Amino acid sequence: MAAPSEFLNYIDSNADAFIQRLADAVAIPSISGDAKYRQEVFKMADWLNAQLKAVGVETKLVDLGKHIMDGEELPLPPAILGAIGNDPTKKTVLIYGHFDVQPAEKSDGWNTDPFTLVINKETGQLIGRGSSDDKGPILGWLNVLQYHHDNKKPLPVNLKLCFEGMEESGSEGLDELVEREAKEGGWFHGTDCVCISDNYWLNTRTPVLTYGLRGLTYFKLTVSGPGRDLHSGVFGRTVHEPMTDLVHLMGRLVDTQGNILVPGVDEMVPPPDAQEIAIYEKLDYSIADVEEAAGGQIALTSNKVDVLMGRMRNPSLSLHGIEGAFSGVGAKTVIPAKVSGKFSIRLVPPQTPDNVNPLVLSYLESEFAKLNTKNKLTIEDLHGGKPWLADINHWNFEAAKRATKAVYKQDPDLTREGGSIPVTLTFAESLGVNVLLLPMGRGDDGAHSTNEKLDRSNFIEGSKLLGSYLYEIAA
Amino acid sequence: MAAPSEFLNYIDSNADAFIQRLADAVAIPSISGDAKYRQEVFKMADWLNAQLKAVGVETKLVDLGKHIMDGEELPLPPAILGAIGNDPTKKTVLIYGHFDVQPAEKSDGWNTDPFTLVINKETGQLIGRGSSDDKGPILGWLNVLQYHHDNKKPLPVNLKLCFEGMEESGSEGLDELVEREAKEGGWFHGTDCVCISDNYWLNTRTPVLTYGLRGLTYFKLTVSGPGRDLHSGVFGRTVHEPMTDLVHLMGRLVDTQGNILVPGVDEMVPPPDAQEIAIYEKLDYSIADVEEAAGGQIALTSNKVDVLMGRMRNPSLSLHGIEGAFSGVGAKTVIPAKVSGKFSIRLVPPQTPDNVNPLVLSYLESEFAKLNTKNKLTIEDLHGGKPWLADINHWNFEAAKRATKAVYKQDPDLTREGGSIPVTLTFAESLGVNVLLLPMGRGDDGAHSTNEKLDRSNFIEGSKLLGSYLYEIAA
Repeated sequence: MAAPSEFLNYIDSNADAFIQRLADAVAIPSISGDAKYRQEVFKMADWLNAQLKAVGVETKLVDLGKHIMDGEELPLPPAILGAIGNDPTKKTVLIYGHFDVQPAEKSDGWNTDPFTLVINKETGQLIGRGSSDDKGPILGWLNVLQYHHDNKKPLPVNLKLCFEGMEESGSEGLDELVEREAKEGGWFHGTDCVCISDNYWLNTRTPVLTYGLRGLTYFKLTVSGPGRDLHSGVFGRTVHEPMTDLVHLMGRLVDTQGNILVPGVDEMVPPPDAQEIAIYEKLDYSIADVEEAAGGQIALTSNKVDVLMGRMRNPSLSLHGIEGAFSGVGAKTVIPAKVSGKFSIRLVPPQTPDNVNPLVLSYLESEFAKLNTKNKLTIEDLHGGKPWLADINHWNFEAAKRATKAVYKQDPDLTREGGSIPVTLTFAESLGVNVLLLPMGRGDDGAHSTNEKLDRSNFIEGSKLLGSYLYEIAA
Repeated sequence: MAAPSEFLNYIDSNADAFIQRLADAVAIPSISGDAKYRQEVFKMADWLNAQLKAVGVETKLVDLGKHIMDGEELPLPPAILGAIGNDPTKKTVLIYGHFDVQPAEKSDGWNTDPFTLVINKETGQLIGRGSSDDKGPILGWLNVLQYHHDNKKPLPVNLKLCFEGMEESGSEGLDELVEREAKEGGWFHGTDCVCISDNYWLNTRTPVLTYGLRGLTYFKLTVSGPGRDLHSGVFGRTVHEPMTDLVHLMGRLVDTQGNILVPGVDEMVPPPDAQEIAIYEKLDYSIADVEEAAGGQIALTSNKVDVLMGRMRNPSLSLHGIEGAFSGVGAKTVIPAKVSGKFSIRLVPPQTPDNVNPLVLSYLESEFAKLNTKNKLTIEDLHGGKPWLADINHWNFEAAKRATKAVYKQDPDLTREGGSIPVTLTFAESLGVNVLLLPMGRGDDGAHSTNEKLDRSNFIEGSKLLGSYLYEIAA
C-alpha cells in the first residue's frame, strides 16, 4: 500500500526539527578509526540509543569486546540492536546502518568545521562529516519512527534494527554478532528481508536500488634474491634483478585494455542476456559522468554499456603498487633486494576467492618459471571476499521500486556497485533472505572526502522513501 | 726507479704512529651529507691542512661558496689545493682524495663507535668510518710525505694535491674548480698524470689498477590520467589505469637475462677482442665472489668472463622503483592517479647520454603508442654522465704495475668499475692527461656500510705502494 499522505506531510512539516536532529548527531565526532575519538563513538551510541527508546524502540546494547588499534587496546563501541512491533501477520524488516564516521579535520581542506552541520540555503546542502555516511540515513529511519510514535500509528511492518559503530574500521565483531543473532532465538531470527541504506545514487539526479557488489581477492607477489640492496653500478648486468622479474610478471596479469590475462578468470563470467544489457542501456549514467568522476578522459571504451559493465558486472584487475622498491622522489641507483607487487581482482558471480585463487597461483608460477631467473617468488593471498547479487524481482525490490516511483515520480535505476560492503553478504548468507541496498544520498556527496554533504531534499524525500518502502512491503 | 729501502723501512717503523694519525682523522665526524655535521667537515679541512703544511706542502684553501641542503643554506667546505716540488726536470703528479665521509651511527648496526678507530689485533682490521673511504688513502700520501720531510729527501716527482670535502654529497663546486685550475696559470696546470685512490680491490687478495668506469643516464617515466587516486572497486575496468600502462612500458626496457631491449643500445658497444677477454679470464674474481658480494646465488650466467664483462664493459639497465604507487605495507585497493617509473642505464664507451638518450626516448614513445591508452606519458632525463676508459699501456699505469709488483710481489689485476666516479672524467677531460685509479682498500671494506674497515696491511703496504708509484714514475 502507499504511505498515508499524513505521513508524507508530517515529514515535510517537521523538516527543520529533523535537520536540527541531524546537526546534533553530526556534532558528535564519532570517528572509529582514531583512538582518541573512541569515547565519542560511545557517546554517539548513547545518543542514538536514547533517540530510539524515545520513539518506542526496544533496544539492547551489545558489548563487542576489545581490540588493538595502533598498538593500543581499546574497548569496541557497542552494537545497538533494536526491535519494534511483533505482529505475526506483518513482515519483519531488518534495517542496518552505522553511527561511526570517517576522520575529518578542517585542515584536510574543509571549508567549514566538519562537526558543525552547515546549511547552505542557496544549494540546499547539509554539510558535515557523517551527514550522508551514514548518520543521515539512520536519522531517516528515526524520522519515520517519530511520525508513528507521535501519532500513535502502528508501523506497517515489524522492524529489527542493527546499528554499529565500527563500519569505517572494518566492522570488528559484527559478522559474529549477525551470525549469532540470525539463529533460532536470536534477535534477527524471523527476519523476512533486509534493507541497508549506506551507498549512493550513481549521479545527482536519479534514485537507485542496488542489487550487486563485487567481491575481492588481493595478492602480494614477492621476488627476492640478493642478500641486500645492491648498487646498480656494481651489480647491473651481473645478477638477476628482482625488480625486472617482478615488472615482467605484473605485466602479464592484465593488458592495457583491462582484460585479465590469467586464463579462465574472465571466462568464468557468463555474458549478459538481453534483459541485463537493457538495464545498463537505461542507466542514467554516461561516459562523461564516469570521466568526470575519474577526473580525466580515460574511459576504456566509448561504449556506455561496456564501460558500465566493466564496473558493475565484470571482474577487474588493478595493479596497486610495489613495496620494497625505490619509491621516493629523486634518482637513486639501487637494485632493490626484495620487491613485493600488490594487485587485486574484483570478483563477480560465480567467482569467489576459492575458485579464482588457484587459477591465479598456477598461472603466476608457470609464468615466473618462463622468466628463467634464479630469484625466488612467493605469493601471498592477503584477503578476499565473495561478490553479492540479489534477485531484483523479489517483493523486497518491488516494494522499493514502487516507493521510489511514489516519492520521486520516477523509476529507480538498478545498479551494481564495483566495490564491496561486506556486511551485505553476511546478512544475505546468515539470514538467507533478500537484501536491498536503498541509498539516500547522491553520487557527489563525498562520503569519505572533505566537505561531505547530504542534500536537504535527499534527507527529506529520502525519509519519505524509507517510510513508503515499509508501507509498500506491507502491500 | 724502485723506492729506496730506507723509505719502505721508515713506513714499517712508524706504522703505529701512522695508525694513530688515522685514528685522529677518523675521530672527526666529517659527514658532508648531514647539515648538523657541516662544521666537522670544516674542522677536518683545518686538521688536514695543518698536517700538509707540517710536511712541507704549500696549501691553499678554496672557498666553494654556499649551497642549499634540506632547505637550509650551508657554507661548502673548502677544497684544499696543495703543491710540493717545482722541478721542471721531474714529472708532475696530481693526487685527488676526499676528507668527508658517509653518515654513520652506532644504531645503524655498528659493533663499535664509528668515530673511534678500533684496532682488531686478531684480524688486523682498523675499524671506523672513513678508515677506507677515503681518509686511509689520503693519510697514505701523508705518510709518504712524512718520510721525505723528516729525512729531508726530495720527492721523486712534483706533486699537486686536490682534496675535497663534498665527495659523498655530489662533489658540489669541484668540477668548476678543476676546470678553472687546469687552465694556463691554474694550480693544476702542467700536470703530467693523475692518481686517484678512492676505489677498491675486487677481492681481499689481489691488488688492482682500475682503468675504466661506466657512465650513466637516469630516466623518470610518468604516466598520468585520472584527476586523483581512484577506488579500484568503483573504477576498475572502466578507465585506463596508469600503473598498468607503466608496468607494461617498464617491462619492455630490459629482459630477465639483462639484455637491454631498447634497439641500438647494446649494439653500440663493440665486442671485446682477444686481449680484452684475456684480462677478464685472468682476473682473480669468480662467480662465487660475485654471488657472495650479492648475498645470493643469482649470477646471470655460469660463465665468469660473461659475468665480469656484464659489470665492467657492457651497459646495464636497472629498474629502480616507482614513485606515486602504493608502496606501504598491507593491502590498499587504490588506482594511483600518477605513477613515475625510475630506471637508469650504465653506459660504456662509445655510449654517452647524448647518443643513447635519443634512442631511449624514441623507443619509449613508440612503445607507449602501442599500448593504446588514453593516459599521458612524460619522460624526464634526471641526470647522466659519460663513461671513462684509460690507456693501460701508458707510463702512468706501467709505473703503478711495477710499484705493485715491488710491494705486493704480484702483478695487479686490471679492472673496470661498473659504477661512476665523476671527478675522474673531469680530470681526464680538463687536463687531457692519463688518469690512474690506484685503490688502497679491499673489496670487503664496506665503504658506505656499517663497520667500515681498512686492513692494517693495506694501510701500511698501501702507503709503500703510493710512495713506490711516485718513484717508478720518476724512472
